[in-house]
Amino acid sequence: MENHKLVLPEHLNHYGYLFGGNLLKWVDEISWIAASRDYPGCKFVTIAMDKVEFRRSVRQGSILRFDVQRSRQGRSSVTYTAMVYCDDIETGREENIFSTHVTFVCLDDAGEKRALPQ
Amino acid sequence: MENHKLVLPEHLNHYGYLFGGNLLKWVDEISWIAASRDYPGCKFVTIAMDKVEFRRSVRQGSILRFDVQRSRQGRSSVTYTAMVYCDDIETGREENIFSTHVTFVCLDDAGEKRALPQ
Amino acid sequence: MENHKLVLPEHLNHYGYLFGGNLLKWVDEISWIAASRDYPGCKFVTIAMDKVEFRRSVRQGSILRFDVQRSRQGRSSVTYTAMVYCDDIETGREENIFSTHVTFVCLDDAGEKRALPQ
Amino acid sequence: MENHKLVLPEHLNHYGYLFGGNLLKWVDEISWIAASRDYPGCKFVTIAMDKVEFRRSVRQGSILRFDVQRSRQGRSSVTYTAMVYCDDIETGREENIFSTHVTFVCLDDAGEKRALPQ
Amino acid sequence: MENHKLVLPEHLNHYGYLFGGNLLKWVDEISWIAASRDYPGCKFVTIAMDKVEFRRSVRQGSILRFDVQRSRQGRSSVTYTAMVYCDDIETGREENIFSTHVTFVCLDDAGEKRALPQ
Amino acid sequence: MENHKLVLPEHLNHYGYLFGGNLLKWVDEISWIAASRDYPGCKFVTIAMDKVEFRRSVRQGSILRFDVQRSRQGRSSVTYTAMVYCDDIETGREENIFSTHVTFVCLDDAGEKRALPQ
Repeated sequence: MENHKLVLPEHLNHYGYLFGGNLLKWVDEISWIAASRDYPGCKFVTIAMDKVEFRRSVRQGSILRFDVQRSRQGRSSVTYTAMVYCDDIETGREENIFSTHVTFVCLDDAGEKRALPQ
Repeated sequence: MENHKLVLPEHLNHYGYLFGGNLLKWVDEISWIAASRDYPGCKFVTIAMDKVEFRRSVRQGSILRFDVQRSRQGRSSVTYTAMVYCDDIETGREENIFSTHVTFVCLDDAGEKRALPQ
Repeated sequence: MENHKLVLPEHLNHYGYLFGGNLLKWVDEISWIAASRDYPGCKFVTIAMDKVEFRRSVRQGSILRFDVQRSRQGRSSVTYTAMVYCDDIETGREENIFSTHVTFVCLDDAGEKRALPQ
Repeated sequence: MENHKLVLPEHLNHYGYLFGGNLLKWVDEISWIAASRDYPGCKFVTIAMDKVEFRRSVRQGSILRFDVQRSRQGRSSVTYTAMVYCDDIETGREENIFSTHVTFVCLDDAGEKRALPQ
Repeated sequence: MENHKLVLPEHLNHYGYLFGGNLLKWVDEISWIAASRDYPGCKFVTIAMDKVEFRRSVRQGSILRFDVQRSRQGRSSVTYTAMVYCDDIETGREENIFSTHVTFVCLDDAGEKRALPQ
Repeated sequence: MENHKLVLPEHLNHYGYLFGGNLLKWVDEISWIAASRDYPGCKFVTIAMDKVEFRRSVRQGSILRFDVQRSRQGRSSVTYTAMVYCDDIETGREENIFSTHVTFVCLDDAGEKRALPQ
């Protein structure tokens, strides 16, 4: 799944670059959407992230492109690889600025793990 | 261009449905991203919206799908049609819940209208 | 009804001007308040906006004045005209920077349209 | 000066009532707007609040009415009395739910106190 | 109790300093946490603040240190003194920039005042 | 370093529990504060997180306690271990709900890595 986001002044840290915490929040949301669309009817919660790497600082006005792909499916959990690319407004070239793996587990109404549909 | 957004409790009105003002804010942002990607190097500002229609209330937990298409290009302005669909998490069926036309104008560094690249 | 709002850094786009999406959100909220005060006991939802026009960019530190007036009443819907003026802090002169028409419909508890009190 | 605000779910504490910190933030903003409109060209900063009283809890969906009046003018400072009333949507009756005094001082460009215009 | 907070661009006023309303919101939250930890099982609401003093402007990037101490206990209410210090990132020296007294009252499930545990 | 945070309705996901993205944002901010206080004068940016584990869902009204400790110092980078505990308001017992390792790198004014002070 692909998604886009504009970096506004409200998202910056005091050095004038995108505050990493906002990027993490967006990645969690977009990966969750991808999982919920792949498995309709499943109730997912995030249980882990791994290899979170911030590769380059991002300036305000940047358009971010999120690319989220399913990379591993277990019995009741599924992992997505999230890559974020920065689309420079003026030149149009893009660069990978962030990557991570996000793992979700599927819960039933009682909050217990349940098997994913195959 | 396509984009997705999850409706969280922070986006609701006091009736428990998505607050329309948040939807307008997202549509403005996503249409702007579409225009900026179609015309790299252009500095766009929103000048108008037309036929803004809210067709159905949206509950929290809904996944919204934004579909933004260029519908008219003028000399220095461009109009996008934004349609928003609601993806019911449990059934997976989607419905059109919102539509509008957003018009941007391209400005030069002095803030004057400038012709769009053809 | 009249209302005021201060434009803070958190409301800006990356060009340093008020992000249009925030203005739309405020107009929706203030028009809704006007309708709810004019018709106590009615439950209103926004169904349309028309002729949304952004006339001038707004800098941070600006004080916005919202003027919202009822312009048309139907059987179960009502339209307000919202004008926004920018009050320059230093000179005190004001200018119209935005206008639109917002239409609300009155719903009963089952979510069906109901007639407005006359 | 009079102003209105709608209490949305994003403004609540975990008891389901308006979080006091949000009310304080709104009172500071609206009083500042009142002062800046009364003294065009002055740069004000908040230096004190006194007798801050929360008189009643406020539910979501409430429309708040802020009434801010100048109560004392010194040489370089000015105090406003802010009263907040809650407008019950269904009955239309209003009640005083909050009051305080906010004092601003007028600064010059070097950040030093300067006399208010008489 | 001690707490820390980083001042980001989203917290600034249009002069480029911390917006006082945000500081008030943080002080209310942190004092409430201190009270709730000192009296487990009590449901507290803020009823008053007194002698709110903003002593110095705060720049973005500042690390604030909140120091909250219980100063007076009544039968059903308790008052905390909140001091805020600004930790200059580069020199490491700190200065008192804000102080106030916050009073909470303990409520039972019916919303009536109840005695604090001794 | 220790810090506290109250979970409010604005922080929830649509299941009624703390949205993981907000927790990640807070952990990034608090770890950054810890690093900046340990190395006055250093300009830090987050470059990695590892072993991000969400151990238990968190309800609104919970008081979170963040415990951040330096775990490894390299030449120009430093790693902190962040543990988050949930303090149940009514019973007062706490449980570990989240853990991760956050790595920062120290930059000079040109944006190049620079050695940490020993």
